[in-house]
Amino acid sequence: MSTWFQHGQAVDAMPLDSRALHYGDGLFETIAIRAGKARLWALHVERLRSGCERLGIEAPDEDGLSKQLEHALRSSTVDTQYALAKIIVSAGSGRRGYQRPADGSAELLIGIFEAVPPDAELLRHGVVTHSCETIVAVQPALAGIKSLNRLEQVLARKEWQDPEVFEGLMCDADGQLICGTMSNVFVIHGGSVSTPALDRCGVAGVMRRHVLDTLSANGVTVAVCDIAWDRFLSADAVFLTNSQFGVLPVRACDEQQWQVGSLSRKILSLMAQAGIEECAA
Amino acid sequence: MSTWFQHGQAVDAMPLDSRALHYGDGLFETIAIRAGKARLWALHVERLRSGCERLGIEAPDEDGLSKQLEHALRSSTVDTQYALAKIIVSAGSGRRGYQRPADGSAELLIGIFEAVPPDAELLRHGVVTHSCETIVAVQPALAGIKSLNRLEQVLARKEWQDPEVFEGLMCDADGQLICGTMSNVFVIHGGSVSTPALDRCGVAGVMRRHVLDTLSANGVTVAVCDIAWDRFLSADAVFLTNSQFGVLPVRACDEQQWQVGSLSRKILSLMAQAGIEECAA
Repeated sequence: MSTWFQHGQAVDAMPLDSRALHYGDGLFETIAIRAGKARLWALHVERLRSGCERLGIEAPDEDGLSKQLEHALRSSTVDTQYALAKIIVSAGSGRRGYQRPADGSAELLIGIFEAVPPDAELLRHGVVTHSCETIVAVQPALAGIKSLNRLEQVLARKEWQDPEVFEGLMCDADGQLICGTMSNVFVIHGGSVSTPALDRCGVAGVMRRHVLDTLSANGVTVAVCDIAWDRFLSADAVFLTNSQFGVLPVRACDEQQWQVGSLSRKILSLMAQAGIEECAA
Repeated sequence: MSTWFQHGQAVDAMPLDSRALHYGDGLFETIAIRAGKARLWALHVERLRSGCERLGIEAPDEDGLSKQLEHALRSSTVDTQYALAKIIVSAGSGRRGYQRPADGSAELLIGIFEAVPPDAELLRHGVVTHSCETIVAVQPALAGIKSLNRLEQVLARKEWQDPEVFEGLMCDADGQLICGTMSNVFVIHGGSVSTPALDRCGVAGVMRRHVLDTLSANGVTVAVCDIAWDRFLSADAVFLTNSQFGVLPVRACDEQQWQVGSLSRKILSLMAQAGIEECAA
């Protein structure tokens, strides 16, 4: 179940001249709603505004955005104790063609969705992943941005039907690990933690940011760097991050298997203390 | 002015759970309507169906598509003597997330737009182009397909405001010429014609196909190959193709200038004979 809002009004359709529909000309955030509040709100706003700036789309101001989200949460029929909000910013409406209209202003859509916590078994034993054949294309102009151009992720997600496979991991054309279809990836070698650099492609997740900040504040350094697929396979442990589930250990990728080690447990514990309730074992 | 149709009914909005909106999960065609008929219809249908197949989207059958377009043309308030039809195929509606719903079927939208012929001066003297900084990302899974993921073209089109500049030309990260933001490119060196290969990225235009077929039928061989930017700049003549304007000579790209040579004139004449009325000088 979901409900949608625009300009403080419930809506059930969007105009046919929206640039989001025609070109994917826009971006979005998916925000965990816990006890009626937006989790990691400041990080979501920061990424949304930075993405708008890079795409040349008028960025919604934080105060107005916050008020509209609060209104949507109050008005939605979804139980906001544990839910998900999706904010879509479209580059606006108007004329056909790639050129944005000079007088076009951004359009904001807010959807409130039902959500369920991840299965506690996944936290204890880790998730199974698949190595995707679909690559992430190198495009520095869009790298890091959660844009509405997500066909690569759709094609990657089509690669498996096995319900036991939780996520697919994607590389660029050079075989560097980039991200999951809906998550970011961290790898552990001994006491070292690293995560792929996302300056050429990939989506820079808000939970990835929160993990980087939290670990840094707790004296755990994370290297943000290129990680070749072989280096990934040789890891001692692997975990995924995502705004909804927080952190989940990975126990397999195709034939490769991992244990949930003590450093992973420590990181989960730090993230639980940093407000990510799903990480509390 | 434009009018939109779905399932034979005029519509003015689309459902908020459309995958086209959320992920650009779909593709489109823009078709020249001349004297009430779809020009190069067979080529448009072929590309649309091939794109659907590659993206794993249920392809509309030609007969049904043809009937729906005819109905839209009859019902539209737009003058279809000289117009443009846009057909959007979305991967359907339903659940949040990159995974397509198992029971999802494709959705078809048809828009009829007003159109005007290109300025005859452009045909005589050629158009001015700009070399874009925005690259086309290499993504073989989407190469050639006119998908709804078009943010690269939007960003490239944002690079110039000068109304005298008609089109922007885009390269891949290796500096190979790929295409214009809304057109394909052909280059002439002496008596040789070539056009970029589009197996790694770019949109394979229907007019590009028609030019290749027409020239081949008239004994003019076109090499479909990699064309480095320097090779492009050293051309004797350059022209663009697009389903709406047909063929237009290029007279400049940034500082580089070209004449409209005799081979370009011959090609324009062949294309006019092959049913592209805009090419008749």
